[in-house]
Amino acid sequence: MSLLTVGTVAFDAIETPFGKTDKIVGGAGTYIAWSASYFSKRVNLVSVIGDDFDMNELDLLRARGVDTEGIDIKAGKKSFFWSGKYHLDMNTRDTLITDLNVLMEFDPQIPESYKDSDILMLGNIDPALQIKVIGQMPKRPKLIVMDTMNFWMTDPFIDNLKKVIGMVDVLAVNDAEARQLSNEYSLVKAAAKIMAMGPKYLIIKKGEHGALLFHEKNVFFAPALPLEEVFDPTGAGDTFAGGFCGYLDKTRDISYENMKRAIIYGSAMASFCVEKFGTQRLKELSHKNIENRVREFIDLVQFDIEIAE
Amino acid sequence: MSLLTVGTVAFDAIETPFGKTDKIVGGAGTYIAWSASYFSKRVNLVSVIGDDFDMNELDLLRARGVDTEGIDIKAGKKSFFWSGKYHLDMNTRDTLITDLNVLMEFDPQIPESYKDSDILMLGNIDPALQIKVIGQMPKRPKLIVMDTMNFWMTDPFIDNLKKVIGMVDVLAVNDAEARQLSNEYSLVKAAAKIMAMGPKYLIIKKGEHGALLFHEKNVFFAPALPLEEVFDPTGAGDTFAGGFCGYLDKTRDISYENMKRAIIYGSAMASFCVEKFGTQRLKELSHKNIENRVREFIDLVQFDIEIAE
Repeated sequence: MSLLTVGTVAFDAIETPFGKTDKIVGGAGTYIAWSASYFSKRVNLVSVIGDDFDMNELDLLRARGVDTEGIDIKAGKKSFFWSGKYHLDMNTRDTLITDLNVLMEFDPQIPESYKDSDILMLGNIDPALQIKVIGQMPKRPKLIVMDTMNFWMTDPFIDNLKKVIGMVDVLAVNDAEARQLSNEYSLVKAAAKIMAMGPKYLIIKKGEHGALLFHEKNVFFAPALPLEEVFDPTGAGDTFAGGFCGYLDKTRDISYENMKRAIIYGSAMASFCVEKFGTQRLKELSHKNIENRVREFIDLVQFDIEIAE
Repeated sequence: MSLLTVGTVAFDAIETPFGKTDKIVGGAGTYIAWSASYFSKRVNLVSVIGDDFDMNELDLLRARGVDTEGIDIKAGKKSFFWSGKYHLDMNTRDTLITDLNVLMEFDPQIPESYKDSDILMLGNIDPALQIKVIGQMPKRPKLIVMDTMNFWMTDPFIDNLKKVIGMVDVLAVNDAEARQLSNEYSLVKAAAKIMAMGPKYLIIKKGEHGALLFHEKNVFFAPALPLEEVFDPTGAGDTFAGGFCGYLDKTRDISYENMKRAIIYGSAMASFCVEKFGTQRLKELSHKNIENRVREFIDLVQFDIEIAE
């Protein structure tokens, strides 16, 4: 199968209690593509960059089977730049700089060769653009997954956000966003309200506290791996999404049972992402590393209790 | 086998976003005994109360196989009373009143008939008293489990706390307490430091985010059940401990593998506890209820991933 993702490819400058970086490569599309590339044979990436971007980074992605035809390179323009500083607990951060640059004029165009992609992963961008992307697919993908953020949950974006939420199969948000979107504190109640907006599946990401997958009356919980240190949380959610979609694409199975496995693989990929700055750790993984990490997740949560029927 | 627990039997007055109570029965010893009574054939309870206590509550405990010979009833004195108010997120609370009353003169005496108890569960009390209890056991119990709290992690209590921590097999604390005790933010690092103080097993309770069990290089994670509402979190940690110890006692198996199961049973009991005020929900459970709840935990976390060796 094949995976189409739309998301930012950008520069980040990150400061954590462990250090700080100059401009390094980031963006949701970048993390999703790197992570998915360990599973999907073909990842189709749609994004926009300026000609200040480090084009070697695109070569690295292409070497991993990521098609970059869908990346619009704007001559004489600057790439999207975000800078942030994490607090000591690593769960909260301050945004220092947001230079939208080319993102201001992002008008995603899906190349012809991408249009038969089986899974569509919409990274966190303006919901108006997410709608536009879905509209360009001549045939509905087998599965549409979307990420978003609190910024789009207020006027004037909320109407478009609700519209696109009504068009997708899987929505992935964090716990604070689920609460804001539903106006419910209980995540169980929040999930019911959000699924009533359209998505058959809802993933609520809780960072170091793991992730929940809701579907109808079912709920599945995947922990985050307890790590000695979280070095840099940037991109962990996108890496999770990339692993999740990539695994579903590779296994050609979009059932609830397989989504559980996909969430474990996504969590494993995210656990690597936070070990180093930016995409660095994602660039050096082997399939053996990933298998061993997934085995750690199995050891972490598996127990055998037999209950007589 | 049999379980000996030492802990407060007291009055609480609780306010949550869902309502408030007059004086109701609470205390760590009460919750531990109620919870363990669904597993242990015999729960031996050591505590202290005033003669203002509702003695019908002791009848209810005795009807569940809890031996109350070890409860010292002080004539003309008042029982320990705690009053607290939970914030909207239910994870934080303000203490409104702490009337120590009989707790000021608590001098635990272990009845002869309790002295061959197999498992000793030390509820959260002054570590000097926890040491005194261990000292009264002519033969070391097969397993000693202890709870404590941040209050004892400062002078002049910290030395005794470290001493008793060095005497037990299993320590149960919450995440904030683990960080305070170890001076490490990472729970993995905190666990290593705390186990170096003596306990072979460390349980870190994370409330709505579940619980971790550390042992040597192993870590097991049990989620909390996602609930529609948490009505009253009071006693959840003690109920967890009671279920944990009760299950180990019932199954006569204190291995790491069985502790994983015990943590799931403890978590199941805690998930009931928070559904109503005080001990109310714990008083009305059936074994069928508990089995069904444990099955929900299985559904919540179990997945099947096969990794080739």
